[in-house]
Amino acid sequence: MSTREVENTEERLGKRQKTGSYVIHYWDGVPGRAEYIRLIFEYTGTPYDEVKDNATLMTRVCDPGTVGIPPNLWPPALELPNGKWLGQTGVLVNYLSPKLGLAGYAKDDTDLDEDEKAYLSAKNAQLFFTVLDLFDEVHKVHHVVSSELYYEDQKAEALRAAEPFRAFRLPKYLQHFQSVLETNPANKDGKGPFLLSNLTTAADLALFHNLTGLEFSYPKRLKNLQESGKYELVFKLQERVQNEPKIAEYMKSNRRQQFSFGIFRNFPELDNEE
Amino acid sequence: MSTREVENTEERLGKRQKTGSYVIHYWDGVPGRAEYIRLIFEYTGTPYDEVKDNATLMTRVCDPGTVGIPPNLWPPALELPNGKWLGQTGVLVNYLSPKLGLAGYAKDDTDLDEDEKAYLSAKNAQLFFTVLDLFDEVHKVHHVVSSELYYEDQKAEALRAAEPFRAFRLPKYLQHFQSVLETNPANKDGKGPFLLSNLTTAADLALFHNLTGLEFSYPKRLKNLQESGKYELVFKLQERVQNEPKIAEYMKSNRRQQFSFGIFRNFPELDNEE
Repeated sequence: MSTREVENTEERLGKRQKTGSYVIHYWDGVPGRAEYIRLIFEYTGTPYDEVKDNATLMTRVCDPGTVGIPPNLWPPALELPNGKWLGQTGVLVNYLSPKLGLAGYAKDDTDLDEDEKAYLSAKNAQLFFTVLDLFDEVHKVHHVVSSELYYEDQKAEALRAAEPFRAFRLPKYLQHFQSVLETNPANKDGKGPFLLSNLTTAADLALFHNLTGLEFSYPKRLKNLQESGKYELVFKLQERVQNEPKIAEYMKSNRRQQFSFGIFRNFPELDNEE
Repeated sequence: MSTREVENTEERLGKRQKTGSYVIHYWDGVPGRAEYIRLIFEYTGTPYDEVKDNATLMTRVCDPGTVGIPPNLWPPALELPNGKWLGQTGVLVNYLSPKLGLAGYAKDDTDLDEDEKAYLSAKNAQLFFTVLDLFDEVHKVHHVVSSELYYEDQKAEALRAAEPFRAFRLPKYLQHFQSVLETNPANKDGKGPFLLSNLTTAADLALFHNLTGLEFSYPKRLKNLQESGKYELVFKLQERVQNEPKIAEYMKSNRRQQFSFGIFRNFPELDNEE
């Protein structure tokens, strides 16, 4: 770790201690799994900091002395304003969504009882984890044999894995989300579309992110699926979220890291119209 | 679907409507992802029913007309006593654990405030999802190219994928859980061991299930890792859960489905001491 990086980290930690804001700990240089958390904070205007230091990340987020007990296994990890830590992407989403009004009901809602809120929150989590399943399948194509090996060392297998992904798996997910959007009564008369209730949820933000990533990784196949007209509401949701003022501003800011060598990679040899 | 299966299903649905119990909807013939839910009900003595009808499962758990809005994409799905449905294994675990006293605090706890309970519940979920990551990696080895293909059609790739799984990934998970168990102060003086707090959690039950499945799938490698002595607390947890009276009774009952052609499969060619 360079001196400058140390200073940056200390500066950030200092800032955090003063503001008591959330801190995302993740790899530098790629949106990755942490992007689902960033989008939650950005959309809701929640202050957050990031510590991105690849040299010490794994020890930092996995060390019981730092993160408390029990420790985590993988990034991202989230440091809460009270100094406690949480790990596992979906757990972070599930923990933050109801607090920040992204679980299908407003933060200050007084009409629903606790059971109804818990159920909506679980439905948001159900949808989010289905989005994350798709994300994991994208990763699995280019790291098909093992995440312990380089892409170049498993390219033959990746070429084979990309075929059923493009032909069956990707359309299966798009069809599911299209069905979710078609059956949501809140989307009648061209409203939304929203995956759950008539509010933007963490699941909406996550699906937007996956579609943006798929445009980068599989531009030919995604264009072809879009032009089929079968998943109209799915692409309409992507457009809606992209045009939400806070998201539009974020996507243009330097806080948004570009797709490169993360989960969503562009290997032209893995893409095709089908 | 045969007439007998229809009758069975109606009988079960009839019983459910009377008792208002939970109903697990999953494939027949394998423990699968639903086992994490069964173990929760069995350990806590919570009444539940199952509908296992492979012919209609996918339409049943994915149909908005049956499961409500939004629908699910995959089994398992859980029908709640109030008639509503939830999908995604981890979401079911996360929903049930605090209700049934498996999230690191007792159901009737009055010492912790809501924030502390939400945090413990999230830590139980964090641990559970790490157990589920391991489960997904087990699946990924024998369905390495795609879950849309038969094992026999991706055997060459599976043989290659099994090597880094046995050498790196499996020990990485065991080391993590060993570290979680070593640092939990509740396990001092040989108590437990427990992953979280001084109570059995859904994460404990899930880790027990994975170890039992790994014994079936990778008997040579697991024996070799056990004999290394590096993961003593992990195997002690397995033994502890196995001997919990309600779990011991369940494992001998006909409600417990045997490992066969599910996620935990035994392909001797994929196993080795390392």
